[in-house]
Amino acid sequence: MIAAEDVNGKVLYKDDDHCFVWLGADPESVTGVVQTNQYLIINKGRGVLLDPGGIHLFARVVATASRYISLDRIDTIFFSHQDPDVSSGIALWLGVTTAKIYVSSLWLRFLPHFGIVDQRRVIGIEETGSTLKLPAGNSLKFVPAHFLHSCGQFNVFDERSGILFTGDIGAAVFPPGKETVFVDDFNAHLPYIEAFHKRYMVANKVTAKWARLASSLSPKMIAPQHGAVYRDASVGRFLDWIAKLECGIDILDSIYKG
Amino acid sequence: MIAAEDVNGKVLYKDDDHCFVWLGADPESVTGVVQTNQYLIINKGRGVLLDPGGIHLFARVVATASRYISLDRIDTIFFSHQDPDVSSGIALWLGVTTAKIYVSSLWLRFLPHFGIVDQRRVIGIEETGSTLKLPAGNSLKFVPAHFLHSCGQFNVFDERSGILFTGDIGAAVFPPGKETVFVDDFNAHLPYIEAFHKRYMVANKVTAKWARLASSLSPKMIAPQHGAVYRDASVGRFLDWIAKLECGIDILDSIYKG
Repeated sequence: MIAAEDVNGKVLYKDDDHCFVWLGADPESVTGVVQTNQYLIINKGRGVLLDPGGIHLFARVVATASRYISLDRIDTIFFSHQDPDVSSGIALWLGVTTAKIYVSSLWLRFLPHFGIVDQRRVIGIEETGSTLKLPAGNSLKFVPAHFLHSCGQFNVFDERSGILFTGDIGAAVFPPGKETVFVDDFNAHLPYIEAFHKRYMVANKVTAKWARLASSLSPKMIAPQHGAVYRDASVGRFLDWIAKLECGIDILDSIYKG
Repeated sequence: MIAAEDVNGKVLYKDDDHCFVWLGADPESVTGVVQTNQYLIINKGRGVLLDPGGIHLFARVVATASRYISLDRIDTIFFSHQDPDVSSGIALWLGVTTAKIYVSSLWLRFLPHFGIVDQRRVIGIEETGSTLKLPAGNSLKFVPAHFLHSCGQFNVFDERSGILFTGDIGAAVFPPGKETVFVDDFNAHLPYIEAFHKRYMVANKVTAKWARLASSLSPKMIAPQHGAVYRDASVGRFLDWIAKLECGIDILDSIYKG
């Protein structure tokens, strides 16, 4: 259960110039709709939104983000991949901010299908990733995470806080009432992540490669788009687990016959 | 170049009780937006729409489909996967028809993020596929095509016409002015399909498995969601080609370092 004071967001990192905020839980989670996390980074008073989500959540996310920053100070919106729960609000977000949108170059030609999208405001991230300088001089790294699950997916590593935003990697599906903000006991959390990762992630070849890349960044927290935030010992436990996971096409015959 | 008389659609198969229609090309294709194909099956006067597309195309597809059938006679809408160019029009289509929507059970919890969706009208297709009976007694088979590219994807095999609708499999990206309705010369078509399949399709393990499954259906045509329709000798040529294709995680090191 998420504490009442956390429902409208929780600051995961803060110093004088920089903070990283989890934007809270759906106050009433709707049965049968996957729960999503949105995050906001504020650096020297300018904002970056990570996976702000679909049409469905737009009003709530606008209201929550506005508690931390004025919408006209959001310069950057990042989409980890093309799924509806990540990016279907694109036309609405372009309307209420002047932000530029960053997404894998693989999805540039697909996003206009969500509605009227000014393509001059959408920037395709190159396959091997890129770096965005923040006003205080720190960097956000767009780190490749392709095929996990989307064939064009990026993570964001916030160097100053040490938080790695991972999109669908690390996602949990909680039974009602079992939601938590943080993963503090990895063994207890495992039942909520196992089925999703086995079915949606593409193969051990790529989970292992990604785990090496993520470990090399020494993240202090891993913040996924669904479920809870890994911190302390659960970061390493998760990376070890996913590095060994058999999933997707490794177990293809159990998924379909042909 | 697509002939003027085909811009508003072309009947790919027709008998007394059944027809399979390609719903035409965008009259003005917009630079930087991926072109999509929509298809309509009419069986004993009742309609099935395949991948009717995003918000962006809604007005055109409604107008074109209405030339063949009254919208209130469309009972079924099929989405091959969750991408915006396939399914972001879901709330609009639920509004103008009384159809039920079929999509992989993997995406049921994600679609509501597109907007207000009555979940009682959305049916999740089980992993191994299923069969839908049509009014004249024929069947549509929902055939698994997972990881090509979406981890939850289905094809539709229309037994009566022998046409296999393949979603993103077989998709072509044409240079402006080079669009065709049919693939009649596979070698000439190859440059328009190669880069897409190498990057978006997940691995040869799954393209080979899918090619065996598709071949076992002996399709007369292969109709993808982008590009042109394979017929006659190009059907077998395409199946042979994709069965041998190295793609996705087979060539992972060329896509990203880790």
